[in-house]
Amino acid sequence: MLNHGGDLDIIQKKYNISREKIIDFSGNINPLGISNKIENTIKNNINVITTYPDKDYISLKNSISTYCNCNKNNIIVGNGSTEIISLFIKNLSPKNAIIVSPSYSEYERELKNNNCNIHFFDLKEEDDFLLNVDKLISCINDNIDLIVLCNPNNPTGTAINNNQIKLILNKCKFLMIDETYAEFSSDIENICATSLVNDYDNLFVIRGTSKFFGVPGIRLGYGICKNKNILDKINKYKDPWSVNSIANLIGISMFDDKEYIQNTKNLILNQKQFIFEELSKIKNLKFYKSSSNFILCKILNNKTTSSKLFEDLIKENILIRDAKSFPFLDDTFFRFCILSEKNNRLLIQKFKNILS
Amino acid sequence: MLNHGGDLDIIQKKYNISREKIIDFSGNINPLGISNKIENTIKNNINVITTYPDKDYISLKNSISTYCNCNKNNIIVGNGSTEIISLFIKNLSPKNAIIVSPSYSEYERELKNNNCNIHFFDLKEEDDFLLNVDKLISCINDNIDLIVLCNPNNPTGTAINNNQIKLILNKCKFLMIDETYAEFSSDIENICATSLVNDYDNLFVIRGTSKFFGVPGIRLGYGICKNKNILDKINKYKDPWSVNSIANLIGISMFDDKEYIQNTKNLILNQKQFIFEELSKIKNLKFYKSSSNFILCKILNNKTTSSKLFEDLIKENILIRDAKSFPFLDDTFFRFCILSEKNNRLLIQKFKNILS
Repeated sequence: MLNHGGDLDIIQKKYNISREKIIDFSGNINPLGISNKIENTIKNNINVITTYPDKDYISLKNSISTYCNCNKNNIIVGNGSTEIISLFIKNLSPKNAIIVSPSYSEYERELKNNNCNIHFFDLKEEDDFLLNVDKLISCINDNIDLIVLCNPNNPTGTAINNNQIKLILNKCKFLMIDETYAEFSSDIENICATSLVNDYDNLFVIRGTSKFFGVPGIRLGYGICKNKNILDKINKYKDPWSVNSIANLIGISMFDDKEYIQNTKNLILNQKQFIFEELSKIKNLKFYKSSSNFILCKILNNKTTSSKLFEDLIKENILIRDAKSFPFLDDTFFRFCILSEKNNRLLIQKFKNILS
Repeated sequence: MLNHGGDLDIIQKKYNISREKIIDFSGNINPLGISNKIENTIKNNINVITTYPDKDYISLKNSISTYCNCNKNNIIVGNGSTEIISLFIKNLSPKNAIIVSPSYSEYERELKNNNCNIHFFDLKEEDDFLLNVDKLISCINDNIDLIVLCNPNNPTGTAINNNQIKLILNKCKFLMIDETYAEFSSDIENICATSLVNDYDNLFVIRGTSKFFGVPGIRLGYGICKNKNILDKINKYKDPWSVNSIANLIGISMFDDKEYIQNTKNLILNQKQFIFEELSKIKNLKFYKSSSNFILCKILNNKTTSSKLFEDLIKENILIRDAKSFPFLDDTFFRFCILSEKNNRLLIQKFKNILS
């Protein structure tokens, strides 16, 4: 069972394809790979692995602070956004939480591990999966300790803006926003909540680096929050050094790599426009406007299912995400991410062949 | 406050010495650095950071299984031995534990974080800090859920053998042995408990790579245990991917680097013999026979204290470990590890100058 996009080892074994040959449209990872700057930084500093990383990660936090325009004292770094999600939930220890859903499976796993009652607030297909904020707010009562939101949301690609986020913050005890995909949005200033951290004590923003910076292998994520209670608790209970020296080294230079960041934004924007245009031409396929680097689609005829489409494509070394394992989605939904122009064209052609 | 050897960032700031200039006798880290083999492996495979590590770490576990001659299904890998200690204690959730002490501070921190009552079983100075196993066993009653032992022990360097370990295993509910320093011992077959894992369901062995393989920056540790209950619990609750792709890559080749392993053993053995001989010549200094790569010493006259010795040496860029922060030790104790012959000679000469 594929619980995460990009489970390449499972695919490799099951379909007998070597990892390197798989064109991975399922992992939502920046296709630019790493920049020469980062590659050289590693090659010239391999010796960092012979010493412990700075336990306080001061240079890394400075770098994130500049990148996100936030106070460095409000930053927690961790072993991927996964550790940050886990640390926040463990230390908040909510009894009742609402997950805006369908969404990333780790929230549910971590809340369950902490014996939290989970309520799913479902994004409706008839609303094109856009979050109805008024309706969400009407579900918040005194028992609800936490709202979990991925923004832009995975797998729907939908996002809400800062004004809508404020409405939720004014009503709830705590809001955790996972912004793993925020940097891919062309409307980042409006969507991303880091600028609200100073004004809201009940906001915890989570960021990863795996997707936007294309480095899932380094395991580097961070959280931004002003609430001293929760920060102190997390710092007390977290393992020291969970971000290793190589991840620390890369992080320090990566957030400042303006050329790479701009190239990524340009690629995603241009390719998304192209893909939207091409998808519009395919009958029997509906797609949802995405604020991120992936697109959720729905098959409208009976010719195939998401599983069958998955199987047809993997035979040609193309890996998409069958979205039926997400709550509230069925076997008409699949997701794919934006790769290079060449690969995107290939995928669009396959869709045309199979679905038309 | 230096809670860990090798807190070079704190030293750098406090004493205004650049990290690179510090001769670090406090970190207990293999002075050989990394081998050319490992350096080339990284340089030729930097792209591993663009994909997630295998969530099941199959190749890494195979490599550890061969190295430790143990069943790969009994292995858990984690972000340094720190994560393994933390995962084991969280999931065992002992109410009462005995720590054989003085020892590494993380055991106490983690047990406290899990609201465990801690009882310290103190290694006696009059016994040269050798563990009195009979006495330890007589302290074990039905309330004690866990015995924590570092073997060889940090900072005393003392170790017990497999027959003694069996006596404890036959009496206690669970024994956690941290073998971070076992590979430095010339008597590893007798000391290391991995061969007992198959016979004892109540044994959890922890290994790190930071010290012996000289790579604290990669954060790679592992646990070996046969108890399915505790393994299943840990696997259920642990974050996926906590060992990053570079650590995974290095781990896979490192355990098979026979030349590096042998060179390390030779260096430590030869230098330890030389250091013991030289220390014997210094009046007013007592040292404890160590089964590891570090040596605990006691100042016998009033000429100086461990803190003063530390301060005198750091002015010359030499960093030793003032051992008075360990439970049951006072300001006559300090610890240093074995580095290159040149650096060892330098340190011995300083000791002679200051202490004689």
